[in-house]
Formats: sequence, structure tokens, C-alpha cells
Amino acid sequence: MPRNTQHHLTPREELYGRIRRFQERLRAAGVDLALIIQNADLFYFSGTCQDAHLMIPAQGEPLMMVRKSYERALKESALDRVTQLKNLAAVRSGIEKYFKGSSRVGLEMDVLPANLFFRYKELLKPMEVVDVSEEIRKTRMIKSPYEIDRLKDSARLSTEMFSQVPSFLRVGMSEVELAGRIEQYMRERGHQGALRVRAFNQEAHMGHLMSGWTAACPSFFNGPTGGAGLNPSFPQSAGYKKIGRNEPIVVDYATVVNGYISDHTRIFSFGQVSDKLTLAHNISLEIKRFFMREAKPGSDGKDLYYSAYQMVQKAGLSEQYMGFGSGVNFVGHGTGLELDELPVIARNHHIILQPGMAFALEPKFVFPNEGAVGIEDTLVVTETGLEQLTGHDDSIQIL
Amino acid sequence: MPRNTQHHLTPREELYGRIRRFQERLRAAGVDLALIIQNADLFYFSGTCQDAHLMIPAQGEPLMMVRKSYERALKESALDRVTQLKNLAAVRSGIEKYFKGSSRVGLEMDVLPANLFFRYKELLKPMEVVDVSEEIRKTRMIKSPYEIDRLKDSARLSTEMFSQVPSFLRVGMSEVELAGRIEQYMRERGHQGALRVRAFNQEAHMGHLMSGWTAACPSFFNGPTGGAGLNPSFPQSAGYKKIGRNEPIVVDYATVVNGYISDHTRIFSFGQVSDKLTLAHNISLEIKRFFMREAKPGSDGKDLYYSAYQMVQKAGLSEQYMGFGSGVNFVGHGTGLELDELPVIARNHHIILQPGMAFALEPKFVFPNEGAVGIEDTLVVTETGLEQLTGHDDSIQIL
Repeated sequence: MPRNTQHHLTPREELYGRIRRFQERLRAAGVDLALIIQNADLFYFSGTCQDAHLMIPAQGEPLMMVRKSYERALKESALDRVTQLKNLAAVRSGIEKYFKGSSRVGLEMDVLPANLFFRYKELLKPMEVVDVSEEIRKTRMIKSPYEIDRLKDSARLSTEMFSQVPSFLRVGMSEVELAGRIEQYMRERGHQGALRVRAFNQEAHMGHLMSGWTAACPSFFNGPTGGAGLNPSFPQSAGYKKIGRNEPIVVDYATVVNGYISDHTRIFSFGQVSDKLTLAHNISLEIKRFFMREAKPGSDGKDLYYSAYQMVQKAGLSEQYMGFGSGVNFVGHGTGLELDELPVIARNHHIILQPGMAFALEPKFVFPNEGAVGIEDTLVVTETGLEQLTGHDDSIQIL
Repeated sequence: MPRNTQHHLTPREELYGRIRRFQERLRAAGVDLALIIQNADLFYFSGTCQDAHLMIPAQGEPLMMVRKSYERALKESALDRVTQLKNLAAVRSGIEKYFKGSSRVGLEMDVLPANLFFRYKELLKPMEVVDVSEEIRKTRMIKSPYEIDRLKDSARLSTEMFSQVPSFLRVGMSEVELAGRIEQYMRERGHQGALRVRAFNQEAHMGHLMSGWTAACPSFFNGPTGGAGLNPSFPQSAGYKKIGRNEPIVVDYATVVNGYISDHTRIFSFGQVSDKLTLAHNISLEIKRFFMREAKPGSDGKDLYYSAYQMVQKAGLSEQYMGFGSGVNFVGHGTGLELDELPVIARNHHIILQPGMAFALEPKFVFPNEGAVGIEDTLVVTETGLEQLTGHDDSIQIL
């Protein structure tokens, strides 16, 4: 039964390819050396996310110094230079020994907590510390063929899960019962559980599951839907509401396999939903078809956003689009090792599509008291257009 | 079946009690105003964790300004002053209007990302910004009777789960299959899924599950055990290893109900484990009995740590204690809304126990190639000693 039981050690040439692309950005930004610490970034550039400091110079060989577990990092990482780190002071001596003359050091200032930042700043004095989070995020924005294969593994598990949802569903079960069943199915087939989101305070647990009115519960989460949640300490996704008839059941899960996240939404319902909801769902499908037809390398994400928005306006659904009233400003978000990668397909945001970009397109409509409809698929930009990685029938699945 | 379907709105007097205790600390630290933003802290002081800024002055009434969702924050929070926040600039005008004369403003500098910190620093100029994370953590360290009840709810679900583990277990199932079954059981009974850890990079997914040698897989995680994990991008907890006979199955789960985390470990085995492991397990039980007998308000955590360590040394198990070779330096860690709260019961760390402190005591022994044994229970300091919140037979459960 388990399909994804193989884990992938990131190949050496893959790691060095990523590092070379990042080094170009470091040189362009005038940064001598980047110090990579955060788990997702560390895994991306080294193939491991043990407790380590990865030093990537603008030019030349990187060095990874590992505190815990050194043995495991040696097994997992295909980098050539991996040494043991005894204490933080050794980070400085490592830089002085191997990267002499570095005067501007880049840190992940978008995720590094302030106190830790000041500790590194003090440690590195008189070197100047600067932010390299944009350079990292832009490097990670373009997925290699290897990464697209990993996204496909993840999307395959997600698609399999959606084919099982009708067998899990019963009228009268609670949302969280359904969530538990979905999560069990994915866990035993390779979903690693925790879902990485880069932005501060943007926590999530594997996805959002809602039915009827709970999909219109607003939430702090930066997405079109929220969900009732189980309690105010985690106010999102599945709650105790019982799933009824003739209401859209929104299954929006982020599947994480080998670190890579595919984001995927489908709607189910016991019996028909109202014509109004069906119509709105069809607009979502039209928007997806529009993207699949029109988006290609060279397209501007802003133009795509506005063309889609015109379809929404024409249908008179602006108020319901991407959240009721105060909806979010985007219709697509990058995905990879984190759920909120670049590119973002959003209002007032120029972004030229390039091959290798991967994003989740999620045109959705939210109706207070009735619920949400729409779809979400993880897509990748190819040389000629978009390729859809997540599958399953995208109409409202009537049970 | 679902037991924990009620969620608790934090009572008004509970919130203001917490705020008063925090205000004493602010005054002692010479801070005029604290700006609370992080989800766990926000939930603690306001009862909601919508996207909001909570301003707590050293003296007087707090004010919460909410960006999204304002409606939901109004329903969830029992604070008297809750207003709508349009943009970040309004935070400054809010302070100028309601907290005139504030010159030192405290931020959560242990969790606030550097870039965001500098944004607030700029916004608040010429006010001085200082770190109030220790004041927050020390306030949260002492649990109220209301919080202890919430920890008991959480511990109850955890104890129920452990009573079911024998019915989930089969020889030859993979670790992650067992994990999926345990997680499903807890999810549908109120486990909210995501587990909050305060320290940077310390991610976890509901717990650690290991069998035999995988419990000795080292990991970046700051705990006695690691686990194989499913892949190098998330190198901890359950992996694909099949559960066999005569090896300890370590079930170490953090149960989160209404935000409150109980941490709990029990060992199962198909058939006996070796005498060496049984002996080590008995030392863990002895350490727990020692704590239950000796620890009380006024005890120093450092003394307790050393007394326990002497029992370990006497048994000749220092090398296996709390991780093989390079074990962690603590035997107990605070728990509450985050898994890594104060107090820590650790080597070289003075901490005087006080009523209301809650911590997970986890004396464990790790044997390379064989696995881990030991127990973990969530305990609370009462007026007279310790009360154990998590239950279930703590011997190795032979199946």
C-alpha cells in the first residue's frame, strides 16, 4: 500500500546547481558570504536539515558546519565540505579560516528572530550583516527538473487521496472526523505531517477542511477561506460541525512528500448545491482554463490576475471572490518547500512567468452562510505554458 | 465518541489576571508598554489569535487592534477594548492616542523575525524598543487553576490514546502506519494538529514515534530521541521501519487541546525487551518516583537534576542518559501553549519550583542499535508537591 516509501537524497549536482544560481545573485547583490541556518533553506542548499550553519561564498566552495547531528548530516548531504561545529564561536573562526576577506555577510533576516540576529551580528563584527532572504527566495522560485519530479510525487499522493474522499465521507460525520481519516491516509503513504510556512505567525496543519457555512468563517490565515477550527487557539480548518446535505465540502490539503508541498482543493457535496454556488464554481473552472490556455513564459502575473478578475466582475461575483468582503489579493501562490514561496499571482504585483516556476492556482468564492466553492491545483510553468501536477475531476463531486 | 468537543473561551477574569501579573513584570523591567503579536502570546493574553496587535501598558487598560478577523476576535476575546486595525501605521497612532508618554516599548524579540523587528522599530521611533520575551515567558510559566484544568483536558485525551495503542499495534506494521492511526484517533477527539514550539527551527509534528534502533537515530531536535523520519527534509519521528518483536516501541506524543500541550511517553513491546533495557527503564521509573516524592515548592530544579543524575551514574547509564553520547542537558521542560516553556529542569540551571509550574519529566535512555526506554509525564507543581496529569501504566507494556 505505501507508495512513497522511498526518500530521496538530493543529488550532488542538484545541490551545486542551486548553489551556483544563488552565488550569481549574491555577486549581483554585492554580498561576500551567506550564512544559511533556517531548516527549509538549509535543506534546499545542503540536502539535510540537521542543526547546521551553511556558508555559501559569492564565489567558490561552500562549507557546512554541523552541531547536531553531524553523523546524520554526513549521510544526508552530498556537499563536499561538511565539518563538525562545537559552538557558535567556531562559526566565526570558520569564516575567518575559509572565507578570509568577507566583509558583507548575508543572513535570512525574514525568518531569523531578532535576538538571534543580534547575536550573529555581534559574533560577526566588524563584518557588515545584510539581508539575503530575497536572493534565497528568488533562487528557490525556479524549480529544477529534479524538484518538479518531487512536486509530482507529492501531487500524486494528493490526487490519490482525493479519489478516496468519497469512501471516507458520511452524512453526519464531523469535519474533524473526515480530517482525521484524510490525514491518516496520507501519513501512512508518506505525508511528513508538518507543513512549512515562511511568513511569521502563518501556522497551518496540513490543510483546511470546511463544510457549508464554516468555509465562510473568517480567520487570520492569509488565504481565501478560514474554517471554524476546533477552538480559538487554532482558529482554522476543520471543526466539530457535522457535514450535512446540499452544502459544499471544501477539502483543501497541502501534501508534503520529501519536503515538497502540493496544494490542492476539491469540492464534494451530498446532493446538489444551489445554482448560485454551481455557477460560481464554473467561473473558477473558467479561470483555471484561462490560465492553462494563456499563461506561459513571458506572461505577467498581474495581467493574468486582472484578466481573471474581469471574468469575476462580469459574473457579478467580486464580493465573493477569494473570501467574502475582505478577500485576499492573490489568486495564486508559489509552492515548494514552503507553502508561501514565490511567485505570487496577485493584484498590483508584476511578475514575469518563467519556466520552472510552480504555483498553486486557487480561484475560490465564499458565500456567507452557504460556504465556499472553487478549485486549487498545483501547476508548473513549462517552456510552452502550464502543466497541471495535481489531478482529479475538478467539478463539484456530487455524492 | 468525541470527548473534547467543547472549546473554551478564556474567561475575562482569567485574562485580566494574566495581564496584571505581566504588568508587574513590565513595571519591574521599566517598560512602559508591551506590543504582543505572536500567536501563542496573543492567545494567552487575549483569548484569540486572530491577526492583531495587543498593547499592554505597565499600568491600566490594554487595547487590542485587530486586522483580520475583527469579527472573530470580538467573539473570542473577553478583553474590554478591541478595535479594528486598518494598517500598521494605525498601531503608532493607537499608542499615541491611548498610551501617551510611552517611551520604552517591549517586543517579543525572541520570536519576531529581524526584518519585522526593524519595521516596528522604525514605526515606533523615537520610542525605544526593548525585549520583553523573558517577562512574557516568566508570566506564562505559572499556570492558573484554569490553565491546569486545560492541561488536564489535554492529558486526559493523551491517556485515552495510550489505552488504545495496543489495539492499533500489529507486528510488521510500519512506524508511520501506527503514527497515522494514533493521530487520527486524537484528531477526531479534539487534538488541534499543529504543535507550537517557540525556539527557532524546532519543528515537530504531534510527537515522536520510534521502534528499536530508530529511537537512536540522532536528530537536530532538542530532545533525547530523534527517530528516522520519512525523509531528510523532516528528519524525526516515525519512518517506514517495520515494527518487530522484542524491541521497544516509543510512543511520545504531544497532545494539544484548546491550545494546551501535554507531553507523554510510554513504551510498548511485542514480547520482552532485553534485561539491560528493562533495567534502564526501571531507573527512569525510579527517577520519576524520586521527583514525585521530593519535588515541591522551594526545590531547586538543579538539585533535582543532579540527584536524578546520581541515580543514573550509580546504575552505570550516564552514556545512555537523555540521548546516546551527546544527550541533552535537561530531564524536564515546561509545557503549556508551547512545548518549550519554562521551567527547564536541567544541568547547571537554578530554578526554584513554585505552585502552578507545569513540566514534562522525561527520564529516558537511548541504546544504539537497540532503541530507547523511559517515560514522560506532564506534571504540575502544587502547594505540597507534584501532581501527575498524564496517566496510563508506566511500565514497559508487553504485548
